[in-house]
Amino acid sequence: MQTDQGWALHTDKYQITMMYAHWKNGSHLRRKAFDLYFRKLPFGNGFAVFAGLERAIQYLETLRFTEEDIQYLADQPERYDPAFLEMLRKFRFTGDVYGMKEGTIVFPQEPLLRLEGTVMELQLIETALLNFIGYQTLIATKAARMRMVAEEDVLLEFGTRRAQETDAALWGARATYLAGFDATSNLKAGAMFGIPTRGTHSHSWVQDFDSELEAFRAYARAFPDQTVLLVDTYDTLKSGIPHAIQVGLELKQQGHQLAGIRLDSGDLAYLSKEARKMLDDAGLTHTQIVASSDLDEDTLLNLRSQGARINAWGIGTRLITAYDQPALGAVYKLVARYKDGEWVPSIKISSNPEKVTTPGRKTVYRIIDRKNGKARGDLIMPLGQTVNENQPLTLFHPVHTYRKKKIRHFRTINLLQPIFQGGKRVYDLPSLEEIRTYHHNQRSLFWEEYMRLLNPEEYPVDLSPDLWQTKQDLIQTIYHQVREENGK
Amino acid sequence: MQTDQGWALHTDKYQITMMYAHWKNGSHLRRKAFDLYFRKLPFGNGFAVFAGLERAIQYLETLRFTEEDIQYLADQPERYDPAFLEMLRKFRFTGDVYGMKEGTIVFPQEPLLRLEGTVMELQLIETALLNFIGYQTLIATKAARMRMVAEEDVLLEFGTRRAQETDAALWGARATYLAGFDATSNLKAGAMFGIPTRGTHSHSWVQDFDSELEAFRAYARAFPDQTVLLVDTYDTLKSGIPHAIQVGLELKQQGHQLAGIRLDSGDLAYLSKEARKMLDDAGLTHTQIVASSDLDEDTLLNLRSQGARINAWGIGTRLITAYDQPALGAVYKLVARYKDGEWVPSIKISSNPEKVTTPGRKTVYRIIDRKNGKARGDLIMPLGQTVNENQPLTLFHPVHTYRKKKIRHFRTINLLQPIFQGGKRVYDLPSLEEIRTYHHNQRSLFWEEYMRLLNPEEYPVDLSPDLWQTKQDLIQTIYHQVREENGK
Repeated sequence: MQTDQGWALHTDKYQITMMYAHWKNGSHLRRKAFDLYFRKLPFGNGFAVFAGLERAIQYLETLRFTEEDIQYLADQPERYDPAFLEMLRKFRFTGDVYGMKEGTIVFPQEPLLRLEGTVMELQLIETALLNFIGYQTLIATKAARMRMVAEEDVLLEFGTRRAQETDAALWGARATYLAGFDATSNLKAGAMFGIPTRGTHSHSWVQDFDSELEAFRAYARAFPDQTVLLVDTYDTLKSGIPHAIQVGLELKQQGHQLAGIRLDSGDLAYLSKEARKMLDDAGLTHTQIVASSDLDEDTLLNLRSQGARINAWGIGTRLITAYDQPALGAVYKLVARYKDGEWVPSIKISSNPEKVTTPGRKTVYRIIDRKNGKARGDLIMPLGQTVNENQPLTLFHPVHTYRKKKIRHFRTINLLQPIFQGGKRVYDLPSLEEIRTYHHNQRSLFWEEYMRLLNPEEYPVDLSPDLWQTKQDLIQTIYHQVREENGK
Repeated sequence: MQTDQGWALHTDKYQITMMYAHWKNGSHLRRKAFDLYFRKLPFGNGFAVFAGLERAIQYLETLRFTEEDIQYLADQPERYDPAFLEMLRKFRFTGDVYGMKEGTIVFPQEPLLRLEGTVMELQLIETALLNFIGYQTLIATKAARMRMVAEEDVLLEFGTRRAQETDAALWGARATYLAGFDATSNLKAGAMFGIPTRGTHSHSWVQDFDSELEAFRAYARAFPDQTVLLVDTYDTLKSGIPHAIQVGLELKQQGHQLAGIRLDSGDLAYLSKEARKMLDDAGLTHTQIVASSDLDEDTLLNLRSQGARINAWGIGTRLITAYDQPALGAVYKLVARYKDGEWVPSIKISSNPEKVTTPGRKTVYRIIDRKNGKARGDLIMPLGQTVNENQPLTLFHPVHTYRKKKIRHFRTINLLQPIFQGGKRVYDLPSLEEIRTYHHNQRSLFWEEYMRLLNPEEYPVDLSPDLWQTKQDLIQTIYHQVREENGK
């Protein structure tokens, strides 16, 4: 069994077979451009939160074939030419990458990453980039939905045990934090990323003692100022809360304060209201109520609308797996080929119109209204073209083209930043706190109609007239070619 | 940022706070027993496939706190006593573990792992064990459903790009292979676990050339005997298949054979039948048809029932994320405490009857009918008790106790194997091929009524009369205690 060092083989086999076929064909060093994007927003949400860039950067900076990797490939039934394997031994990423900043609010069809490089290197990295960015963007988006509902309440990520293996727990925790969660239960995520960590005790702690009261007292002795007691091991209202109050009063006498209680089952609206009354009546008005129990943004919304007295929400399974839609469906498509000294746009046709790609090297401008600072739409343009901020701009829907609007008094933000140039990173990695603040500020750019949980307005992501025309022309050219060949 | 070496911190913070509170309380070395199990089968399936043991074993064997881990804990606001951190520095897993073999067909409520050790070590490992075993068991079960429908067709795991980060892709690929898949696209999974790998080419390969025919020819030159051509880049019936046939005939003239074509969009039933006819008419009767395109066991069942002519299925998103239920919900519960020289059963009560735990250290016997070799039920018994195979055995439903059956002429299999004794592994890791064969053979133990995709019969998992009585008595005792205390 191979060790798990090195990431070059964390790819689909077809990437290597294509690299090899290009090498045999002498075309492996031809330059191409690819876009990474998604086609459809998850969870019926109106936006997504881009995440995964730091992981992608680490991967590209350290991408090497180890000797073990080369040996593995040499043993494959494809019998790769040793000269090809020798080339892999020296492989380094040498391409250019442009990307959104992590935490950016993003929309379908717009390139989150644009990559330029040799076809060989751009094929190799496709699978891992989709794997990292697809998952982390999905989880950041799920977390952002919860943050919207929770308003100022504390949100805790408690999902590790139900995560889809280890990396999902770790990088998922990071994604929830950058999108507005306050802490994670995973200590390794805390250590790797500097995320605050939170945790109380489990039912087994209570079972471990001859009585619940004894268990609560023992826990409070260890953490007199940070005790949060789980009150549902035997009976929440009849046993757990009364015992927690007793310990809370004992702590008070010793000059401490019971930090909180945690409800983990039953009717959280009713129990939290009863608990609040009981705690307040005992004078424990500063003791917080934490809730956990298969929560998601819908239960949060409902519990809050029922007046639940919950200060902090511990959210696990439905957050860390994006339970109602566990994959984003990000894609990575060839958009241009460098040929005879110029970039030639390329397209993939599909019987499903959503799946037709937008050809050419592009960038994305966000159009901001100068009067109110709100985003009016995103405009995808061919690389090199800019928007004249001094002239009115007409945006039109790329499918329903009669839907047009004219915009005046705007400024533009180019959303794609240079990340790698010739394989060298040219982008300074922001800290996670900076990313979190940037994301928080992003939210104020958008009208609430685009941000609501249910049936949000569709935010305009439009193509410039030139780009729209290029796409239509290429579609026609290809249908014509197919018909021609078939007529022969 | 911490490096990602070392797994001791891949746990919920509350495990460390409980370890610490036990240490402060002087109770950290008390012995306990925990069960790891799940409560409900996923996907409406009739069984699950146990997976994740090898990963759990690797974790327990190498579990250490690194200096970085200790430093991280020392910096936490809890201000852990340095003597506690010193103890963690020397931490090793010293417990006993009994577990099912990977690939075993398993059912709700039965312990998949039983663990005995100090409360400190058993709390620390809870989170990671649930994380590994929950995910891998989920994915093996999903894969088993697909294997049942696919019968003898080739099944290919193509999910990496849509997996929830890296480990899910790698360990998920292993889980699908042990449950009957034939290969994965992930080369790293191939290298780590010795799983066969498969892969063809993508749409970008075709776009990369001036014509589809040129692209197909170039690919066939690189792999004259292993060429599978993706035929839907422009138009499957009018362009892709005719060009593939042309290349197939050229290969034939050179003494090779076109291995296959791949359909990746459109009406797979119709297209595969048309493709089969076109290939056969051209004399390419050995060329296989591979399909991929958001497949799962339901689409497989439907396409096969429509007479689709597909030989191999490439399955991605819906397999590797267990799309319709992306978490198993495995749990890890305290079942006994060692006190005054004996093991005392422990229980957790819940207002949800499903969540009440089954107390005590237990083992699981599978009851096999001697006449036909079929499993009649699983029996959970207190540790130390055995079944007398020479006397009739009465099984009864643990909730609906009137549902009884008497079994004669049976043999029993103890499903829980010793894995660790005193922290030392005593179990020889089977090879992945052995696990796969073992799982394949497991299937013939069960009547097809338990195995079908939709509305399977409930397989009996019963408690021995003693165990059932112990559970009832403990429930009564606790309700009595709560009432007593409340009456005071």
